[in-house]
Amino acid sequence: MLDLIAFDADDTLWHSEILYSDVQERFQDLLSPYDLDGRARRELYETEIQNLQYFGYGIKGFALSMIETAIRISDGQIQASEILEIVDLAKGMLKAQVRLLDRVPEVVAELAASYPLMVVTKGDLVDQERKVAQSGLGSYFAHVEITSDKSEDFYRALLARHHIAPERFLMVGNSLRSDILPVIALGAHAVHIPYHVTWAHEAVGVPGGNTREYVELEDIGLLPMFVQKLCQGDGKEAGAS
Amino acid sequence: MLDLIAFDADDTLWHSEILYSDVQERFQDLLSPYDLDGRARRELYETEIQNLQYFGYGIKGFALSMIETAIRISDGQIQASEILEIVDLAKGMLKAQVRLLDRVPEVVAELAASYPLMVVTKGDLVDQERKVAQSGLGSYFAHVEITSDKSEDFYRALLARHHIAPERFLMVGNSLRSDILPVIALGAHAVHIPYHVTWAHEAVGVPGGNTREYVELEDIGLLPMFVQKLCQGDGKEAGAS
Repeated sequence: MLDLIAFDADDTLWHSEILYSDVQERFQDLLSPYDLDGRARRELYETEIQNLQYFGYGIKGFALSMIETAIRISDGQIQASEILEIVDLAKGMLKAQVRLLDRVPEVVAELAASYPLMVVTKGDLVDQERKVAQSGLGSYFAHVEITSDKSEDFYRALLARHHIAPERFLMVGNSLRSDILPVIALGAHAVHIPYHVTWAHEAVGVPGGNTREYVELEDIGLLPMFVQKLCQGDGKEAGAS
Repeated sequence: MLDLIAFDADDTLWHSEILYSDVQERFQDLLSPYDLDGRARRELYETEIQNLQYFGYGIKGFALSMIETAIRISDGQIQASEILEIVDLAKGMLKAQVRLLDRVPEVVAELAASYPLMVVTKGDLVDQERKVAQSGLGSYFAHVEITSDKSEDFYRALLARHHIAPERFLMVGNSLRSDILPVIALGAHAVHIPYHVTWAHEAVGVPGGNTREYVELEDIGLLPMFVQKLCQGDGKEAGAS
């Protein structure tokens, strides 16, 4: 009943947001001598959103936005050595060991035995490819799609490219905005597995009047049973929420 | 006789290196008060190569490498406002109008009438997608592949993914390293169309003892006739070099 199961990567298969949070804290500390009214974090977020049109998602754009924010908040007083520290923070993120979420290896291996699997992720090419390779899970995935955007149009084109009917596609991810809402809008299946930290940009309310459904699971460990029930035609009862 | 013709994008379909060269000149000017022995450009290149492992190809990594180089060359004396200027140079590149090379629109339209076409390019996702869209050529290309790398393994996987035999694939591009040598190593066809500026990293000598062949054309305007002759089985005589 499913021709393809796709997984978001960051904060679905492995930890990611925690890296950004840690670096944001270091960024705040670095700026504290200049940032007397404590607006570093909010300004950084606003700069990131403003810069999405230029940089898209990923660590390189995040680094450039940190640099821009640091210069603005410090009124140009920040030292070159401190900016170099920001570049080094970004490089640290780009070399950080991939930390899989609990139960991910078993679940991916189990599902790969019965279904073609795919990774669908936003971010920088080199960084995401590195993480897939380092995760040790690469061989379970028939396809890895790194995309600038996860809109309804993107998913529609993805399904067309792979000749897959929406009702035979399941997307699994932690972001309502990117992994769930555009997917159910197409009539495909989606499983939401919240991560304990969500980047503000990805946190959306579920639109009112949304009559389509998705399932929320607390833990990826519950996914194989959900998939089994879905394929027996009673997926709705399988939700843990 | 060809199932797919793929084009490199930067400096094959549209001007790109010239943007980098212009910004490198601005970068040298900016650094000239600090760079008494004129090593800015060489150091920038070395930093870029060093940083490829972190940043991959594209403007965002180039910007971060400029910032790092500027701080190092100035011994930390560079002003924050000057670093902000570097960020703005990068944003300018990311918003620059796409300038097609001469004859590209006619050639692409003509070939698209007879063959499936593809774009295969390195660089940042958002930037390359923007350029495809802005080029006005998007509808001629059945596929757009943005990749972190153009190695022989990459092309092998690309052909496998599209179920295409090497001898039925033609790659067209300006970089021997990225567009030509890995392609002919697989036994596929390649047409080299040099651009008047080549990034040092892409400039390689043709390895000695390389018995496989590719064709060099002076101008993309000669491509349709070459393709026609190739498909009539006498492609070797069609080369302009």
